[in-house]
Amino acid sequence: MKVAVLTGGGDCPGLNAVIRAVVRRATEHGFEMMGLRDGWKGLLEDNHFRLTRETTSGILHRGGTILGTSRVNPFKVENGLEKVKRAVERNGIHAIIAIGGEGTLSAATRMSQEGLRIVGVPKTIDNDLNGTDFTFGFDTAVTIATDAIDRLHSTAESHKRVIVCEVMGRHVGWIATYAGIAGGADVILVPEIPADLKKVAEHIQRRNASGRTFSIVVVAEGTLVKASPDQDEHLITSGALDEAGRPRLGGVGSIVAQQIEQRTGFETRVSVLGHIQRGGVPTAHDRVLATRFGVHACDMVARGEFGQMAALRGNDIVSVDLALATKELKRVPEEFFKVAQVFFG
Amino acid sequence: MKVAVLTGGGDCPGLNAVIRAVVRRATEHGFEMMGLRDGWKGLLEDNHFRLTRETTSGILHRGGTILGTSRVNPFKVENGLEKVKRAVERNGIHAIIAIGGEGTLSAATRMSQEGLRIVGVPKTIDNDLNGTDFTFGFDTAVTIATDAIDRLHSTAESHKRVIVCEVMGRHVGWIATYAGIAGGADVILVPEIPADLKKVAEHIQRRNASGRTFSIVVVAEGTLVKASPDQDEHLITSGALDEAGRPRLGGVGSIVAQQIEQRTGFETRVSVLGHIQRGGVPTAHDRVLATRFGVHACDMVARGEFGQMAALRGNDIVSVDLALATKELKRVPEEFFKVAQVFFG
Amino acid sequence: MKVAVLTGGGDCPGLNAVIRAVVRRATEHGFEMMGLRDGWKGLLEDNHFRLTRETTSGILHRGGTILGTSRVNPFKVENGLEKVKRAVERNGIHAIIAIGGEGTLSAATRMSQEGLRIVGVPKTIDNDLNGTDFTFGFDTAVTIATDAIDRLHSTAESHKRVIVCEVMGRHVGWIATYAGIAGGADVILVPEIPADLKKVAEHIQRRNASGRTFSIVVVAEGTLVKASPDQDEHLITSGALDEAGRPRLGGVGSIVAQQIEQRTGFETRVSVLGHIQRGGVPTAHDRVLATRFGVHACDMVARGEFGQMAALRGNDIVSVDLALATKELKRVPEEFFKVAQVFFG
Amino acid sequence: MKVAVLTGGGDCPGLNAVIRAVVRRATEHGFEMMGLRDGWKGLLEDNHFRLTRETTSGILHRGGTILGTSRVNPFKVENGLEKVKRAVERNGIHAIIAIGGEGTLSAATRMSQEGLRIVGVPKTIDNDLNGTDFTFGFDTAVTIATDAIDRLHSTAESHKRVIVCEVMGRHVGWIATYAGIAGGADVILVPEIPADLKKVAEHIQRRNASGRTFSIVVVAEGTLVKASPDQDEHLITSGALDEAGRPRLGGVGSIVAQQIEQRTGFETRVSVLGHIQRGGVPTAHDRVLATRFGVHACDMVARGEFGQMAALRGNDIVSVDLALATKELKRVPEEFFKVAQVFFG
Repeated sequence: MKVAVLTGGGDCPGLNAVIRAVVRRATEHGFEMMGLRDGWKGLLEDNHFRLTRETTSGILHRGGTILGTSRVNPFKVENGLEKVKRAVERNGIHAIIAIGGEGTLSAATRMSQEGLRIVGVPKTIDNDLNGTDFTFGFDTAVTIATDAIDRLHSTAESHKRVIVCEVMGRHVGWIATYAGIAGGADVILVPEIPADLKKVAEHIQRRNASGRTFSIVVVAEGTLVKASPDQDEHLITSGALDEAGRPRLGGVGSIVAQQIEQRTGFETRVSVLGHIQRGGVPTAHDRVLATRFGVHACDMVARGEFGQMAALRGNDIVSVDLALATKELKRVPEEFFKVAQVFFG
Repeated sequence: MKVAVLTGGGDCPGLNAVIRAVVRRATEHGFEMMGLRDGWKGLLEDNHFRLTRETTSGILHRGGTILGTSRVNPFKVENGLEKVKRAVERNGIHAIIAIGGEGTLSAATRMSQEGLRIVGVPKTIDNDLNGTDFTFGFDTAVTIATDAIDRLHSTAESHKRVIVCEVMGRHVGWIATYAGIAGGADVILVPEIPADLKKVAEHIQRRNASGRTFSIVVVAEGTLVKASPDQDEHLITSGALDEAGRPRLGGVGSIVAQQIEQRTGFETRVSVLGHIQRGGVPTAHDRVLATRFGVHACDMVARGEFGQMAALRGNDIVSVDLALATKELKRVPEEFFKVAQVFFG
Repeated sequence: MKVAVLTGGGDCPGLNAVIRAVVRRATEHGFEMMGLRDGWKGLLEDNHFRLTRETTSGILHRGGTILGTSRVNPFKVENGLEKVKRAVERNGIHAIIAIGGEGTLSAATRMSQEGLRIVGVPKTIDNDLNGTDFTFGFDTAVTIATDAIDRLHSTAESHKRVIVCEVMGRHVGWIATYAGIAGGADVILVPEIPADLKKVAEHIQRRNASGRTFSIVVVAEGTLVKASPDQDEHLITSGALDEAGRPRLGGVGSIVAQQIEQRTGFETRVSVLGHIQRGGVPTAHDRVLATRFGVHACDMVARGEFGQMAALRGNDIVSVDLALATKELKRVPEEFFKVAQVFFG
Repeated sequence: MKVAVLTGGGDCPGLNAVIRAVVRRATEHGFEMMGLRDGWKGLLEDNHFRLTRETTSGILHRGGTILGTSRVNPFKVENGLEKVKRAVERNGIHAIIAIGGEGTLSAATRMSQEGLRIVGVPKTIDNDLNGTDFTFGFDTAVTIATDAIDRLHSTAESHKRVIVCEVMGRHVGWIATYAGIAGGADVILVPEIPADLKKVAEHIQRRNASGRTFSIVVVAEGTLVKASPDQDEHLITSGALDEAGRPRLGGVGSIVAQQIEQRTGFETRVSVLGHIQRGGVPTAHDRVLATRFGVHACDMVARGEFGQMAALRGNDIVSVDLALATKELKRVPEEFFKVAQVFFG
C-alpha cells in the first residue's frame, strides 16, 4: 500500500520530525512511503521520491523539510482537481498525508470532500489553527522570540530606552502573548485587541514616573493600531500593509515605535524578528509533538480515518474533522489578557 | 491582608517566575506579601522578609529561588504543627502559598486539614505530581537532556559506540521519554517498565547488523533493571542504590552500560546528566506556565479556595484538591511506549 | 585611594563582567571603587555610588551595565573639561577606568592629554577598535548572528529562496565575515569591499544553475552598494542612510534583497538582526576576555599606566597607548576574503 | 592530484567544518579529495570514498565527523608503516591531511620523517597541543561547561550547597580555567597545580563565614589531589584512576566533593560533565577556526609544506613544524592563576 506525504506552506520547525515519524511508523504498518516534492506541486508534476528509514535518518532535529514546500494550490490550477485525481491513480497512491497550514488544509478538506483519501497534520508557528490545542513550531517560535526579548531587555535598561519588538502573528497574538509573558514585556499588543497607542504611551509614562526608566513593547505583526490620537476608528496606517493588504514586515513595529517616541519623548527603537522565528532546529517540545503527530497520522491511514487530522487535546493526540482546522481562527483566550499582569493595548 | 509564600524541596527552573507573578498579582488584590526563607523553616524560625514589586524585579528568567529552599518538614519537627500555627498567628498571616513537590504538598495537605489556609503550587521537574497535566521545570529539564543527547549522538556515531545517558526520574520516566523521543534515542528505559537488558542488547545488535553502528540508550535513574541474564526477577543491583535505598547518581546508568558492553561486545560509555537538569534559566514554556500558576494561586487566595492547588488541564489553569497531587504518581501513559517507535526496555 | 569606573556608548555583552572584575581586583589593591552613572554624565552631574564585592555579585553573566550608559561627551558640553576636572578633585578621584568605544576612548585620550589619570578598556561589538586583536561582545554578536543564519538556512532551502541577512558593522565587516563563514553563507558583503550587485546576482545564478536552489547573503549594515547596473561609482542609495548620513537599520539589507530579486528573478527575503546582536548574556569567550580586561585595567591603575588601555595581543593581555585605539579603524584583513571560499561582493 | 584526508582520535566539534573547508579549497587547487574512513585504519584497509562539494554539503555545523574516527596507530600494527606506504602508492595518494590530536599527530610526525607527504591539523578540546594558540573544539567545550556551571550556580545558591563540577582536562586545566572564570567559580583545580584540599575547605569556610553560603568548585579530571590532611605528597587516590592509570570519569570530582563535605560539614554534590563536552554543534568561534585551518591545510599541500601543521598565532593562521605539536604539553600560563580572582588549588 502506497502512501504519499507532502509539506505545504511556510517553513516551520518540526516538519522533518513529522516526516521521519510517519516513515518509521509506516514500516510497522507495511506502507510504502512516497515523498511529494514542494507540496501539491509534486503531485501535479509527478515529482516524488521514495522515503525509507535510511533517507529519513538524522533529520529529527533539522529545520526545514526534506520534501521542500510551496504554496501551490491545486484548486487554483486549471483542472487542478482532475490532475490530482489522475496523479493519485497513475501512481497508485492509496492515501495522502498533508502536513500544512491554513492553505494546505483547506485544499485537503476540499479534496477529501471530492473523495480523495486524505489525512491532515496541522502546521503553523502562529498557533492559529482551530481544532488542536497546539501545533509544533509554535514553541520554537516563542523560544526564539523570548531569547530576543531577553537580549533587548538589557539594552533597553542600560540605555533607558523603549524597545518595540515585532513578532509574527498575522491574525492572532499567540506568539506575542507567550513570548511577551516569558520575556517580561511591559506592553503586549495583539490582533485580538486593537491597540490604542495613546493609552500605551500613558502606561509607559506611568512606568517612567515610578522609576522604571525603560520599557519593552511586544507587538504582533497583524495588530491593528490607532495611529493618530484623533482617529475615531482603529486603523492600521497604510505603511504597515503591502499592496495585497497584508502586514508588511516591520510595518506595525515601526509605527508603534514612532508613536511612542512622539507621545512620550523617550528614545524608542524597533526590533523586527522576522524570518528567524520560523526556521532551524525545533525545541524538544516541538520535536515530541511533531513525532506524535506523525505517528498518529500514519495510524489514521491504517484505521481509514480519512478527512480528519491529528490534533492535540490536553496531552492526548486525537483525530478531528479536517474542516475544523480552518473553520475559524483560534484566538488567544481572554484569560491571558486578564491575568498576564501586562498592559494589553 | 498578609499572605506568605514559600518554596520547598529541590531546585526547579521557574520558581522565581512563580514568586514574581504571585507578588505582582498580590498588588491588584491589595495583599501584603511576606517571603518565608528556606521553605517551612522560615515559618518555624520567623525568618522572612517583605516581597514587593521592586524586590522581585528582574527575576523572571533567573534560576533558583530568591526565597531559598529546604526539605524541613514541620511534621517531623517536635510540636511542628503547633509552632506553625503560633507563627501564623504571631505574624498575622492570612494564608500561605506553598510552592513545592511531593514533600511540601503533603505537609501542606495535612496543615490544610488542620485548619490552616493554604494554597499549593505544584513543582517537580520529574512531572510525577498527580492532578496537573504538566509542571514548570519539566520542559527545561527535557530541553537540557535533549541538548545533551544531541551532543552524545555525534560522538556515538563518529566512534561507533553505544552511549547510555542517565537522566532524572526516580519514580517515573517522563524526562527519559520526552528527551529520548526528542533526541532520537534508540532505547528508552523507564521506571514504568522493568528493563530486560538481554532484550536491550539484542535490539542493539539488530541495529548493528543492519548497518546502524551506534546506539543511544536513555535511562531514567529509577529504572529497575534485570542485571544478569539468569535472574528470574527484575532486580536493581545493589550498586545502584544508596544506603537509604534510593537510586544513586550514575548507578543505573553504569550498570546498563556495563551490561550492554558485556553482552554485545560494543564499546559503551555512560553519561550521567545529574544536577544540571534542575537549575538555571527556565525555558519560555516554563516561564509562561510558572507565571500562570503564580497568578492563579494569588487569585485562589482572594477567592478563598484553600486546601487546593493550581493545576494545568489542557491549556487551562484550574484549582484542584491539594490531596490529589500526592495521591498517586502520575506515570507516563502506555500510548507513549507504543507510539514512540523506540525500543522500551 | 578612590578609583572611578564608567561605561559609555552602546550596550555590549560583557560590560558587567568587566565591572565585576575591576571591583574584585580593586579589593586586592586596596582601592575604593566608585561607579559613575551613565558614562561621563555621572561625573559631570555627581551621580555615582560605591561599588563593592556585594553590589557586583551575580552580574558576571548579565547583559547590560549596572552603571548605565550614555553618549554624553564632556568635550561637547560647555566647559566640560573644566567640570570634569573639578568633579575629579571634589570627589577625590585618583584615577578613572573608562570602558567604552570610539567616542568614550577619544574623550579619554584627550582628557589624558589634559593631565587626568585615565585607563581605558576597549568595548565594541563591531571589533573595529585598533590596538587590540579582539574586544569582548564581538564573539557574542557573532554567535547571535550565526544562530540566526543557521535558522534562515533551513527556510531558504525549503522555499528555494535567497535570504539576505543584514548584520551590524557600520565601518567594518568583522561580524559579517565571522558569522558568514560560521553560518556557511554563500555571499558576504562588507564595508571593506564596495559591493557590485551585478556580480552578486551572477554568482547566485551560477549556484542555481548547478542545482543549489537557495542562497544566503550576509551583509554588514555599512556596506557600500552599487545599486544600479550602470552606476559608475559605488553608491549607497539614499534610502539606506538616515538624515545624519549614517546607515539606516535595514537600509542596505533591503536594497540588496530588492536588487537580487530584480536581477535574478528568484524570490528574495531580507532579515535585519538589529539590536538583538548587542545585548544579553555574553558568551563564555567574552566573559573570560572581559574579566581579564577588568583585572588588567585595575592593575594598570596600580602600576600608574595612565593614558593607556588594556588590549589583547595573541592570548596575552597587554597595555597599549590609548590614542592607538581610535587612530584608525581595524579592518578585516584581506586574508579572510581570499580564504573564506565565499563570494565577497 | 589525489589528496587524502583523515580524522583520528576522540570526537571534537568542528571536525566536519575542517573537512568541508579542505574539500571546497581543494576544488580551487584542482585536487581530487579522498576521505579515509576511521583514521589511519581506512588507509590500512583501503576503506575510503570520494569527497566532493556535494558529499560535504550541509556539514559545517554538524558535530562528529563524516569520515569516522578511531585510535588505530599504524606504528602499533605489524608492518604498519610498510602497509601505509603501499596503500599510499596503490591509491596514488599525493599527500595526506591528518586531522587529529596527540596520537594522530605523533604518528603523522613519524610518517613524515619516513618520507610520506603529510600535513597536520591540530585537534583537541583540551587545548593542550603545543605550537598553536588555540584549537577548534575548545571554545565549544568551554561553552558547554560554562552553561552547566551557570545552571549549577542557581541550585547551589538555593540549597546553600557546595557543588563540585568535574570537567575535561587530563593533563592541563584550560577548560577548567576558562569555564571556571566564565562561570564565576569560587575554586578552580587544575593539573598544573596539585590541589591541597585542606586549603580548599578553608577557603570555602571563609566564604561561608562572610555570608556567601554556597560555593562552586570546578575541577579538571586530571588534577592531582592531596586527599588526606596528613599526606606529605600530592597523591591522587586509587579510586580516581582506572587500571591503565588514567583518570576515571568522575573519579577526582567525587574525591574532591567527599573531602569538602567531610572537612566543612557543608552539603556537597558532584556533577560530572563527561562526554557532552566533546560532541555536537560547534560554536561560531570554532567553526571559523576550523574553516580557516582546513583552507590553510589545503594550501599547505599546494605549497608543498609537508611535515608541518596549520596553527593559530594571534589571529593569523601559520604553518609550524609537525613535531612541535607533541613536543610538550601546552599548559595554562601562570598569569591566569594570578589574575583569575579565584582560589586555585
